[in-house]
Amino acid sequence: MKTRAAVAFAAKTPLEIVEVDLEGPREGEVLVEIMATGICHTDAYTLDGLDSEGLFPTILGHEGAGIVREVGPGVTSVAVGEHVIPLYTPECRKCKSCLSGKTNLCTAIRATQGKGVMPDGTSRFSYKGQMLHHYMGCSTFSNFTVLPEIAVAKLRPDAPFDTSCYIGCGVTTGVGAAIWTAGIGVGDTVVVFGLGGIGLNVLQGARMAGAGRIVGVDINPGREAMARQFGMTDFVMSKGMDNVVPHIIELTGGGADYSFDCTGNTDVMRAALECCHRGWGKSVVIGVAESGKEISTRPFQLVTGRVWTGSAFGGARGRTDVPKIVDWYMDGKVVIDPLITHRFPLERINEAFDLMHRGESIRSVVVF
Amino acid sequence: MKTRAAVAFAAKTPLEIVEVDLEGPREGEVLVEIMATGICHTDAYTLDGLDSEGLFPTILGHEGAGIVREVGPGVTSVAVGEHVIPLYTPECRKCKSCLSGKTNLCTAIRATQGKGVMPDGTSRFSYKGQMLHHYMGCSTFSNFTVLPEIAVAKLRPDAPFDTSCYIGCGVTTGVGAAIWTAGIGVGDTVVVFGLGGIGLNVLQGARMAGAGRIVGVDINPGREAMARQFGMTDFVMSKGMDNVVPHIIELTGGGADYSFDCTGNTDVMRAALECCHRGWGKSVVIGVAESGKEISTRPFQLVTGRVWTGSAFGGARGRTDVPKIVDWYMDGKVVIDPLITHRFPLERINEAFDLMHRGESIRSVVVF
Repeated sequence: MKTRAAVAFAAKTPLEIVEVDLEGPREGEVLVEIMATGICHTDAYTLDGLDSEGLFPTILGHEGAGIVREVGPGVTSVAVGEHVIPLYTPECRKCKSCLSGKTNLCTAIRATQGKGVMPDGTSRFSYKGQMLHHYMGCSTFSNFTVLPEIAVAKLRPDAPFDTSCYIGCGVTTGVGAAIWTAGIGVGDTVVVFGLGGIGLNVLQGARMAGAGRIVGVDINPGREAMARQFGMTDFVMSKGMDNVVPHIIELTGGGADYSFDCTGNTDVMRAALECCHRGWGKSVVIGVAESGKEISTRPFQLVTGRVWTGSAFGGARGRTDVPKIVDWYMDGKVVIDPLITHRFPLERINEAFDLMHRGESIRSVVVF
Repeated sequence: MKTRAAVAFAAKTPLEIVEVDLEGPREGEVLVEIMATGICHTDAYTLDGLDSEGLFPTILGHEGAGIVREVGPGVTSVAVGEHVIPLYTPECRKCKSCLSGKTNLCTAIRATQGKGVMPDGTSRFSYKGQMLHHYMGCSTFSNFTVLPEIAVAKLRPDAPFDTSCYIGCGVTTGVGAAIWTAGIGVGDTVVVFGLGGIGLNVLQGARMAGAGRIVGVDINPGREAMARQFGMTDFVMSKGMDNVVPHIIELTGGGADYSFDCTGNTDVMRAALECCHRGWGKSVVIGVAESGKEISTRPFQLVTGRVWTGSAFGGARGRTDVPKIVDWYMDGKVVIDPLITHRFPLERINEAFDLMHRGESIRSVVVF
């Protein structure tokens, strides 16, 4: 079949909106009509050539929502007509990782996904006979895409596509890091570094978990107002501060029970660890760092009881936990609507990237 | 009173055995006759001038066992004649840290202990009128010493002093890191870097916890035999290996559930983290690094689910948990006797430091 898609033919060039060829689903695969997709920093990271493992040409996009239009042989878990959210972190429920019960990082199709192909080693996308790579196993910048059935979460039919798509990455990454990776408890003190989209979602995850004090840290004072709406109780404007750590330790009466880096800046990751409470404070790295950058600290920080860890996709098991977040959204417990600041047709997708680069959007969504 | 003690008058000089003056216990303090004391790398670290916060003149030693000979006003938890192990990590059961239930790092007397004085800000030790600093709140290289009552654990009277003293630091640090800090479970895969005294105690802690595979890593093949006696199932001789991480990941079928650095080498700390299993592996830093050295890794290691933390005194609450280890020792579950490789009278304590520097002892003990 033909489908309209935004193709990244090479790094550092605008996406091109063209008709591409898409093969139908093979065994264990489903064809999904993407109804809406968010544009995430990770897409830009790849498009800007910052990901040394980025593959081109490709169809980017990994934060979508749509409708199953066809299922391949052997597919049993979803049916034509069901609404779904594509999962860049699948959940096979059979691999060592899934069965461990200790991680969401399913390894069933990791190798092929990293190579930009489907689990059978081939791509479904082509353009004028040239193979196009899949991206993060999703490629949601295409009106239609093909996904393994283990890589779609069910989306209840009353949930709107143009907001629910954000659950496919940003919302789950932030809310999940707070409630699943960190395991924030009632009354805990939380510090969130970086109050962009991910940070706002960590804030609301902390609020849901009953955190007592929720401190937000950002260099941009313009972010304070919305952060307060998402649960922040204290704002630290860190621009120009020599070292934010002693300030936060004093503000929190000894340090954070949980801290989160939502910036991708390795210096901030260090500060997030070091502002944790001696003896038990746990710091969660969420942000994606520049290629080659490393985090450092004195081992004394760990020996005195701090814990440094990270979170991918919020620790959420895609098929199990994503529908929970959708329910929380539909119940009004998770707020998404004000975070969707811009909507574009696919033809204007490059404008969404420009807005993001200029820091003028929280989340832009392409509506098909 | 007068007591015989090994005094460190300055860094990088041998200890001098002299008669020092010791004031009796004040409110909340006890006088303890030290019957035996281990000589630990931390004592050497300070004596060698590597600890930038080291204070001189001082009476070193922090791994002792003895008998309460006098109690100051208000002391209720121990009585004259009771056997005790001095605690460099006290347990007041009243401070925020103790009451948190989440850490053993009691803060009740931390500030004064770091300054080499008792909680009232003064020292009980002097020599020819010159004040001598207490060391780590213990100063067990003195036949008699004064301790806050919150800084002694009871030692059952049938436990021998010249082996139980090792529970005051090394045994608890290693065994506790395995069972309390890490929380190793039955069947888990464990990797221990460095098979000196601490490493051997981590091995036996892992064995007690029912670990399945217990891999030991050391550059010295001479350490293999004893490590096997303490529970090691696989030995990796890392000397000359370019990068031990891929080897261990292959050997363990994906990486360690728990790894431990018992070397103090920051490069080894990184390897210990990176050989952990993706998704859940937890690495515990135990070793004390050189002043100013930092640990580093790519944040990707954390984002993909590894956990980096540390352990001080094995996560043991001194007064609560040390008696448990003593019981385990007396029951034969924790092995200590073969680890005490040398015994000296106080007059020969400098020989013990020489042996340790040459790597020829596991633990030397001074018997008074």
